[in-house]
This record gives sequence, C-alpha cells and structure tokens, in this order.
Amino acid sequence: MNAYDSVRPLRWVDSRLQLLDQRRLPLQAEYVDCYSALEVAESIKEMVVRGAPAIGIAAAYGVVLAAKDAYARAGQGWREAIADALRQLANARPTAVNLHWALARMERRMATLPIGDDPYLTLLDEARKIQEEDLAANLYMGEQGAALMHEQGAVLTHCNTGSLATAGYGTALGVIRSAYAQGKITEVFADETRPWLQGARLTAWELKQDGIPVKLIADAAAAFLMKQANVQWVVVGADRITANGDVANKIGTYGLALAARAHGVKFMVVAPSSTIDWEMATGADIPIESRMGDELLAVQGQRVAVEGVDAWNPVFDVTPAEYVDVLVTERGVVHRPSREHMAALR
Amino acid sequence: MNAYDSVRPLRWVDSRLQLLDQRRLPLQAEYVDCYSALEVAESIKEMVVRGAPAIGIAAAYGVVLAAKDAYARAGQGWREAIADALRQLANARPTAVNLHWALARMERRMATLPIGDDPYLTLLDEARKIQEEDLAANLYMGEQGAALMHEQGAVLTHCNTGSLATAGYGTALGVIRSAYAQGKITEVFADETRPWLQGARLTAWELKQDGIPVKLIADAAAAFLMKQANVQWVVVGADRITANGDVANKIGTYGLALAARAHGVKFMVVAPSSTIDWEMATGADIPIESRMGDELLAVQGQRVAVEGVDAWNPVFDVTPAEYVDVLVTERGVVHRPSREHMAALR
Repeated sequence: MNAYDSVRPLRWVDSRLQLLDQRRLPLQAEYVDCYSALEVAESIKEMVVRGAPAIGIAAAYGVVLAAKDAYARAGQGWREAIADALRQLANARPTAVNLHWALARMERRMATLPIGDDPYLTLLDEARKIQEEDLAANLYMGEQGAALMHEQGAVLTHCNTGSLATAGYGTALGVIRSAYAQGKITEVFADETRPWLQGARLTAWELKQDGIPVKLIADAAAAFLMKQANVQWVVVGADRITANGDVANKIGTYGLALAARAHGVKFMVVAPSSTIDWEMATGADIPIESRMGDELLAVQGQRVAVEGVDAWNPVFDVTPAEYVDVLVTERGVVHRPSREHMAALR
Repeated sequence: MNAYDSVRPLRWVDSRLQLLDQRRLPLQAEYVDCYSALEVAESIKEMVVRGAPAIGIAAAYGVVLAAKDAYARAGQGWREAIADALRQLANARPTAVNLHWALARMERRMATLPIGDDPYLTLLDEARKIQEEDLAANLYMGEQGAALMHEQGAVLTHCNTGSLATAGYGTALGVIRSAYAQGKITEVFADETRPWLQGARLTAWELKQDGIPVKLIADAAAAFLMKQANVQWVVVGADRITANGDVANKIGTYGLALAARAHGVKFMVVAPSSTIDWEMATGADIPIESRMGDELLAVQGQRVAVEGVDAWNPVFDVTPAEYVDVLVTERGVVHRPSREHMAALR
C-alpha cells in the first residue's frame, strides 16, 4: 500500500509538534518545533504547514498543546483557559474548512472529559486518530480514484495535494500515486502554481523522492497542454466543498475546470469528507483568502515588479459543481456532484 | 495623441542599434548596443528585445548593419556576402511572423537597388519607415480598439504588448492607453505572465511610467477575476495570425479566451497586418517555440524545483478564431474572424 510514499509533513515527538517547513522546500528539508498553540497557529498562517487536511491535523495537535498549557495554568478551569488558543487556531486561515472540522472534533472530545481530569493524553489520542484516519482515507481514496481511470493517459494536477498536504500519501496526488503504480498514467504534469509555487517546489520534490517522473508547466500552459497532449484527467484537491458540490481550491483550479470541459478532459476532485461544509449551501458563500500582493510583486524574495504597482492576490477560487465530473471521498464516489448526489455522503 | 506613452524599446544612434535590455527591467533601464546583424540576432534570441513588432523592427535594422558590413567586405558582391547574416536574423525566433515580414520587406527594397550602389542609406531609410509605420499603426489601432469599448469596465491583458513590444504605444496596450485616456476603463488588470514575467516586469513598469494604474494578477487567477470583477474585455496582442484568423500569442492566451467565452467577456486581438501570415491556412501549422525548462525550474536565477525534474515550456499557444470576438489591425477591424471575414484585410 505504501509504494511511492515516503514523505511526512508533521510528526508528534516528545510533547511537541514538528512541522516540515514547506516555505524552505525543496532547498532545505527542516522540521520546525511547535511547543504552543500560538506557534501552531502562526505556522499555519505563515504556511510552514499548508494543505487543507494537514492544516486540520496541525490544528488538532495545536489543541493538545493548548490544553496542556491551560491545565498547567488553570487546573480544573482549563476549559475556560483554552478559549483564546482555540480562537487563534480557528482564525489562522479562512478558506480550508478542515481546520474548523478538526477543532470541532477536538472540542467534542473535550466535552466528554470528566471535569478535573488532565485532558492531555485523551486529546493527544484524538489528534493521533485524526492523523491516522486521514492517512487511511487517502490510501482508500487513492484506490477509488485510480479505479475510475479506464484509459491510459497523462494527468494534470495543480498545487500540492500530496503527502505534504495531508497526513501522508495525499488526496489528488494519492490517486496519482495509486494510478501510477497500476501503470495507468503515461505522464504526470504539474502546474507550477503561482504565486507560492507549490507545484514547482513541493509536488515536484515529493514525487522525485518517490521516483514518480513529473513535468512542470506554467499554470497558463494548461489549456494548451490539454489541446496538445493526451491528458485524460485533471486531478485536484479541495479546501472546502459546499453542500451542492461547489469546490474551493487553489487559485487556478476554476480555469483548469473550464479548460478541461472545453477539451473533453475529465475533472476529478479528491478530498476527505472533512472538507465538506454541509452548513454552506453554495460556493458563493465561501470566504476566499487574499494574501499580500508581495507574493506576486516579488519572487523568491526578489522584487520583480516596479514599486507603486498593486496586485490582486486571492489564493483560492471556486469551481462550480457542474464542472466536476467526479468527487472522490473516503465515504464514497459522487459522479456529477449536485445537492442531490452529494446527499449520499452525509 | 502621445498621452501616456513615454517608453521606446529601440533607437538608431550613430550607426548602431540600441536596444533597451528587457531582461533587466524593471530593476535597470539600460540600452545595449548592437553593431552587427549577429548581435541583433543574439539580442532577439536572448530576449533583450521581444514582442513581435519590435522583433521585426530590430531585424530590419539588423539588415542595415548586415548590408553595411557586407558592402565593406565585398563591395559590389554585398548581396551574396549578406546571405549568412539574413539567415541568422531569420532563425532568431520561430513563432512571430513579423520577423520574416520585416526581412522580406528589406529584401524587396534591396532588390530595387542599382548594382554597385552602397545600400546603407537606402536600407536605413526603409528600416526607419518600418519603425515609423509601426508607431502610426499602433496609434490608429488604439483609437479603433477603444471605439469598440461601449461600456465602462475593467480590462485584462496578458504579456507585454506595449511600447516595449513595438515601435511605441503598443498594440493591445495601445488600445488600453487610448481607452483609458477616454475614461472608458475603470481598472487595468495584467497577468504576471509566467515564465518570463513580461506582465509583472514590463507591462507594470511601462504603465507606471505613464501614470496608468495597474493591478497584477497570477495568470491562474484570470478565470476567477472574470467571475468576480466587471471585466468587459480581454485585450491581447499576437505573434502570428493565420489566414483563417487563428492567433498564436504568449502562452496562456488560449486559456484566457476559453475563460472569456465562458463568462461573456469579449476577447480582442490587436496586431498590425504584418502579423498576418497569409501563407498559413490555420494555427495548427504555426511553429511554436519551446524554451529551456530552466525558465520554470528556476525563478530570477534561483532554483525553485528540485534537480532531476523536467518542464514542458512552450512559450506560445494558439487560440482558434472562433474565440476571438474582434481583431483590430491598421487595415481595419474584423469581427468574428474567419477565412471569409479576414479576406477584407488582404
């Protein structure tokens, strides 16, 4: 099962959370230590850790650290003392709903604890379960997604949805790992994914670790690639999926979906069910994070645009459900997602 | 007429061609001297000068330098002695047809010269005419294109099609200059245009020089922008237009055209008639330049992708005529270009 999967973005070691610093990959592969919920929240905000499922897992461990600190400070009063830390974690980034899902799950577990008990080990166990279940979900989704690929051909993916974005194996990249292992994929194309270059920096690095050949393309080359090459599938992850099947994902996903439809290329979204926001009716309601224009105005710390120029830098977009051919989750596969079809996953 | 237009990418000074080094903009604005056709060809290849019309003009001056050298070396035999230099110029870059158009025009002028005459002043005069006519064409196209904009709104452009890409004023950016001066444009959005960042480095710089506010976006944000903002027009240039109206232009143009069509945003191509290749029936025949993968694997000289990863880096794509709402040339405006409609420009 674990073929082509050697990378882990987070690990719990000796009462602290270690995060592989994704800002420095691929030039350095170094882990950053987080001893507090605040450090975890800052690491999420600054993208030391990124990827919707990995953010959720990091936040769960952040709750463990918060509870430990609150119990040390307030004893029986730890449930009140933890409130600030939970808020900091919840506000770290706005778009990925897995963050809120993980916090809600940890809070439900907190609610079951007898008053006065030290919450540490129970919550640590819960965070570990979230992490283990995510990995298991990815392995399962990998099989399910690969089974949908009937013809040999090339695939195109966007951003990083691999081991680095999850507990391991990956969502969209997990499907690509499984399908590659089965000989169904002739070529993997990866968008470089501006502005943060997740494709160039992260996807290329982790596929290289695992011996899966990959070709990088400029994001803007995707439509022409679909015209020129035998691309059978575009496979992407998601940061939030609404009850009707609309998909928020890394900026550029929507344009890929339009191009895929125009070329008869199939469009697969792979995400654990923790990505589904059942409270939200459509993608129009999803809060879309905008990051600093500097991510565009400077590249790798070097100024590229003249001073005094502005940028518009939303880092996610919304792909309407009608452009999604299939949604793969660990609860099942939904063809042509819609409010009605999505209901099967509830 | 010359409002908002202060930049010139090439100038003839004291028997040499000076090219504003576009590789170093916007950090430095320095002219490079070319004393020979070979230096001009190398400058085109290495993108010291780029933009289809500017490449054509540079090549015309390259012929002047070649003829001067050939006459000095071979006297009456200069027509034979010039052949190598013409070949070097013709092979400098494959996609933009303006290069070949300019060379053919210079060769026609050469053919009219009495045998034995020094060709220098006559050819210099012809190159200057090409340059002056390009500027005049751009000013005229600017008016024509702006006149097509009936509703106030935002525009989105790609790559650099401005003064830097032409003799001055620009093609698509010339239309934007004219329409902005007329108060028709609420916002100018510019794609950063990976991998060479013509939008971030060049378009932003030249619009800043001329006091036209611009917002940069990631190329992959274009489709979402069309959904979120009041974009009325996508306005782009062209490197080669075939007899049926298919358009080769900077990689990413095709995806913009697909997104524009999906959103009811109108798509305008602005190019002098020297961009039209009447010999070529459709865009499928256009030679598409691929450049080194390093343009993607490293950014601003800094490695971003791990060693051992490949890239697919075509730097142009082809937009089928059916996605073009209007083509603006100095010979006239063609709505819904097709083989039949294009014939009006012959």
